[in-house]
Amino acid sequence: MSTTFAALADPTRRAILARLTHGPATVTELAAPFAMSGPAISKHLRVLEHARLISRGREAQWRPCQLDAGPLREVADWAAGYRRFWEKSFDRLDEYLEELQGKRKEVTGPKKGKVHAKKR
Amino acid sequence: MSTTFAALADPTRRAILARLTHGPATVTELAAPFAMSGPAISKHLRVLEHARLISRGREAQWRPCQLDAGPLREVADWAAGYRRFWEKSFDRLDEYLEELQGKRKEVTGPKKGKVHAKKR
Repeated sequence: MSTTFAALADPTRRAILARLTHGPATVTELAAPFAMSGPAISKHLRVLEHARLISRGREAQWRPCQLDAGPLREVADWAAGYRRFWEKSFDRLDEYLEELQGKRKEVTGPKKGKVHAKKR
Repeated sequence: MSTTFAALADPTRRAILARLTHGPATVTELAAPFAMSGPAISKHLRVLEHARLISRGREAQWRPCQLDAGPLREVADWAAGYRRFWEKSFDRLDEYLEELQGKRKEVTGPKKGKVHAKKR
């Protein structure tokens, strides 16, 4: 799981996985949308391959990459175990936003007072 | 998301989150199950706090930690987007295991041959 999470902790690597949902791709094809050198992309691919999130074809020259989403199931299952806790977090966020709205009303209060003061 | 994944890429930090599902805990309580110094645990807590996965109480001396599972919802949603692909991966794993079983049968073949050779 640590290897999977570490591999996912990079936006380029997550973008590569998203690209591979459309089908296998070569390194050149994967590099195209990024302002990144071939070796930089290859390094990301090695990290993804090590985490078993992608695998590479055997055709020596092209070696197309394909998505292996198996480890993402573990991630989904692991995170789903916290469902009842994030529901709690959102309840707390609601409370916080209500509290904040209350404060905003307090802030708008004095402004009205100023207008009132001008009238005097 | 990168910050969340990076925070989750460590087994101690994931164990801390699991512990906090039982309720808030102090640094001392969190450190207890680990053969780790207070400062080492505090460093992990800072990473989790930075990723908004935990928050800490305001009571100056104890500052109990509590789980904020909100970012884990994002992780779960993100990973769930790959569901149909991991189902594909498992189909491929099935194929691979079948292939492997086929090979195992081939391997047991020659062993029988050896026994046969002794008899000669």
